Amino acid sequence: MRIDIIAAVPELLDSTLHHSMMKRAQDKGLLEIHTHDLRKYGIGNYRQIDDYPYGGGAGMVMKVEPIFECIEELQKERTYDEVIYMTPDGTVFDQKTANQLSLQKNLIILCGHYKGVDQRVRDQLITREISIGDYVLSGGELAAAVVVDAIGRLLPGVLNDECSALEDSFQDNLLAPPVYTRPAQFRGMHVPEVLLSGHDARIREWREEKAWEITRRKRPDLL
Amino acid sequence: MRIDIIAAVPELLDSTLHHSMMKRAQDKGLLEIHTHDLRKYGIGNYRQIDDYPYGGGAGMVMKVEPIFECIEELQKERTYDEVIYMTPDGTVFDQKTANQLSLQKNLIILCGHYKGVDQRVRDQLITREISIGDYVLSGGELAAAVVVDAIGRLLPGVLNDECSALEDSFQDNLLAPPVYTRPAQFRGMHVPEVLLSGHDARIREWREEKAWEITRRKRPDLL
Repeated sequence: MRIDIIAAVPELLDSTLHHSMMKRAQDKGLLEIHTHDLRKYGIGNYRQIDDYPYGGGAGMVMKVEPIFECIEELQKERTYDEVIYMTPDGTVFDQKTANQLSLQKNLIILCGHYKGVDQRVRDQLITREISIGDYVLSGGELAAAVVVDAIGRLLPGVLNDECSALEDSFQDNLLAPPVYTRPAQFRGMHVPEVLLSGHDARIREWREEKAWEITRRKRPDLL
Repeated sequence: MRIDIIAAVPELLDSTLHHSMMKRAQDKGLLEIHTHDLRKYGIGNYRQIDDYPYGGGAGMVMKVEPIFECIEELQKERTYDEVIYMTPDGTVFDQKTANQLSLQKNLIILCGHYKGVDQRVRDQLITREISIGDYVLSGGELAAAVVVDAIGRLLPGVLNDECSALEDSFQDNLLAPPVYTRPAQFRGMHVPEVLLSGHDARIREWREEKAWEITRRKRPDLL
């Protein structure tokens, strides 16, 4: 899978893309991530990529020309399944969307920054608008990192233990049951007996019960 | 405001905390962020911080002792308003929570990693569990970065233009209206007349109408 991320501040992406799971995915050749500095396509000597909003108001707007130039250059090289724009007013990202996107071959992710991009970019170039949640960030870079991480870990071979992702919260619409590890006792707090029993069927049953109980209590909307 | 972030892979946080808005907030002395490598509190020569889950199954569980040690060490130095655990089964983060947290003085954020932390940590030390959305990430580090960014930009003086944050999506439960900047024409696409009119009242009205229209169409659940 290949993901091209276009950003006003690509440095924000460096550490998340080059450590831990994301690094492993790229080292194994399972995921190819290319970041593109929008400023390279900026206008004039100052490489301008933003300007004042028409109609006045606070904040800057990302200009239309650099984004068109960058995306069209990429599209000349290969076909993209989606051109995604990260924006708080997009469709809210969830595990189902992560699963879907993880099956694609080539994605472009455009990060909003400042007050967002000129609407004409959204009207003409963007095929999908994604928000990672109902809050505002200083830029779309972090949001893009979240999406890439959620997708990347689903690619076969990326997680050390292939079963791991299927047992996660949300994959079956239930929250995960509590987990415990050694020591069995710590400051008077004990691990539940059943988990020490070695009785697989009872453990499975306990976990399923807990998952339902926790989901009912914390997130009845998922059921 | 001071935020202490405890993480198994603190390197993941480096670039997001040291560029752009987050850097500015710290340079101006408005936000103090300290990251703590959990491995420093790890057990034995290998500085072990995780172990196999009781009851079997895929993935590793973060051990109870290093987390207790780290948090208790911090709590000896100062009083924390909240000890937050980032986890997909926490309460879903939103702009209201960001506003609330931005008024606190000292926060601890514990990042889950692997299969999550031993439940006894959650039972004893954690005052608030936060999820940034209904999807699973490879670790809580990115989620913590999202929360810190959403909070940090709300601190007075962090954004270049103080009005900016109040006009964002969600602050009034409406999505933001479309934005445009120069040029007024690009490949046959025009900026809406009203924005070029210089007529403040009409512009304000147009923006309000658009915000309602977009929210009704994309996110009726917000109304």
